[in-house]
Amino acid sequence: MTARVVIAGVGLIGGSFGLALRAGGFDGELVGLGRDPAKLDAALECGAIDRGETEAAAATSGADVILLAVPMGAMASVLAAIAPTLEPNTVVTDAGSVKGSFVTDAHRILGSLKRIVPGHPIAGTERSGVDAAFAELYRGRRVILTPTEETEPDATDTVERLWSLTGANVERLPVEAHDRLLAATSHLPHMLAFGLVDALARGDDPDAVFRYAAGGFRDFTRIASSDPVMWRDVCLANRNALLEALEAYRDDLEQLTAEVRDGDGDGLLARFRRAKTARDRFCG
Amino acid sequence: MTARVVIAGVGLIGGSFGLALRAGGFDGELVGLGRDPAKLDAALECGAIDRGETEAAAATSGADVILLAVPMGAMASVLAAIAPTLEPNTVVTDAGSVKGSFVTDAHRILGSLKRIVPGHPIAGTERSGVDAAFAELYRGRRVILTPTEETEPDATDTVERLWSLTGANVERLPVEAHDRLLAATSHLPHMLAFGLVDALARGDDPDAVFRYAAGGFRDFTRIASSDPVMWRDVCLANRNALLEALEAYRDDLEQLTAEVRDGDGDGLLARFRRAKTARDRFCG
Repeated sequence: MTARVVIAGVGLIGGSFGLALRAGGFDGELVGLGRDPAKLDAALECGAIDRGETEAAAATSGADVILLAVPMGAMASVLAAIAPTLEPNTVVTDAGSVKGSFVTDAHRILGSLKRIVPGHPIAGTERSGVDAAFAELYRGRRVILTPTEETEPDATDTVERLWSLTGANVERLPVEAHDRLLAATSHLPHMLAFGLVDALARGDDPDAVFRYAAGGFRDFTRIASSDPVMWRDVCLANRNALLEALEAYRDDLEQLTAEVRDGDGDGLLARFRRAKTARDRFCG
Repeated sequence: MTARVVIAGVGLIGGSFGLALRAGGFDGELVGLGRDPAKLDAALECGAIDRGETEAAAATSGADVILLAVPMGAMASVLAAIAPTLEPNTVVTDAGSVKGSFVTDAHRILGSLKRIVPGHPIAGTERSGVDAAFAELYRGRRVILTPTEETEPDATDTVERLWSLTGANVERLPVEAHDRLLAATSHLPHMLAFGLVDALARGDDPDAVFRYAAGGFRDFTRIASSDPVMWRDVCLANRNALLEALEAYRDDLEQLTAEVRDGDGDGLLARFRRAKTARDRFCG
């Protein structure tokens, strides 16, 4: 596949995208766009990009596709920086974990959504930066594209072809379905984990609590060590869907608490059995 | 160490205890007590016990220590079965995950707590039964003993020596401290996980939710596949401490939800940072 692909933000996600495209046989040009020349140099050295640019115009000129792989909090400012330099056919996609807010920003800043293909690779590690990037990050992982009604089909197809080269399984979902789904399966669990660790850390004897941390709790603490800034941004960007998930969960937890309070063994057993059945059925 | 040790309940926990004692150089006799001759035979065959008995009196006669490794829901009936057969110096210990309820049962059924050493090995696997037992289950794991004020020191020392042979790190805590600690680090997280999986399974589109389950969520679902009956019993046995933990958590989650509702990015960021700091500080 020959094309010029711009990667704005050459960290773990963007750097791995470049490495994976190259490993997958992509033979076009990979252009890195970033503010920090040292980071671009590091991306060049490890082969994630072929050329680094610090000015938007120099990067976007002649670009077929631009992947915005910057933190969600920086998405609007990067869109604003590239907006005046965009050529009419250049496809713009992103790698943010909330899609509704990206569509809103893109619509406001770029005017048209015809060449906008919102995307979300469900992949990552606990590390960050291009030094942590590797070509296999996306292999076998899901990448969800959420083209808008305005998005032109060929734009979505182009982005899908690129992600396929990385070894990812590409799927398509409506924007709202994606955000509700991720609120339930990722954002809510992270809230519960952050909440638990924070509550225990501020409790009577955090040293003892963490020292005796048993299996179940260890899993929670691991996901609570994710990047706080990223999660702040996710919460703000996916506020409505997350709020709905949090409120539904609170109601459920209130019922469970009442069962514990009342010593309602039958109610608790039925609840635990439903959960185990669902888990075993869906997760094998 | 020469002694006669009775293991009541030769499943994963009891069977591994026998195997681990033997591997650790224990040269006394290991007697299995259980209702099912086939299970006792299986324990004999794998070397977890030297002799199996289905009658309490035959097992407890001449016993130095009896480990009750039965499900918590069966603890009271096993205590009642051995009570009339107990010799005055025999030490009784257990492996249940809630200690207050065991002490209450033991006091009610046996009258005296002098020879009672409540214990809790923090170890296990997702499998159960003696076929899943192995000698290394307790190696490097914590075993918490919670002797009561009445418990005679030599009884606790004896139980501690046995567990030490298994490779476990033995610690001592007051009964109430143990139950509060486990409510926070194990019982509450399991409630949150069961609650989440149950809530999602009953939601709009469980198939999609489980299919797209991302990292954080997978960790939750794994702990929600634990044995429902065991967890029902834990909830009932540790009701007060668990209720306290659930209510404190609910209040915290309510604050977090309000921050999401209000778009309070600073509040969310502070919360996530506190959690990450605590996690990184305590869990390395």
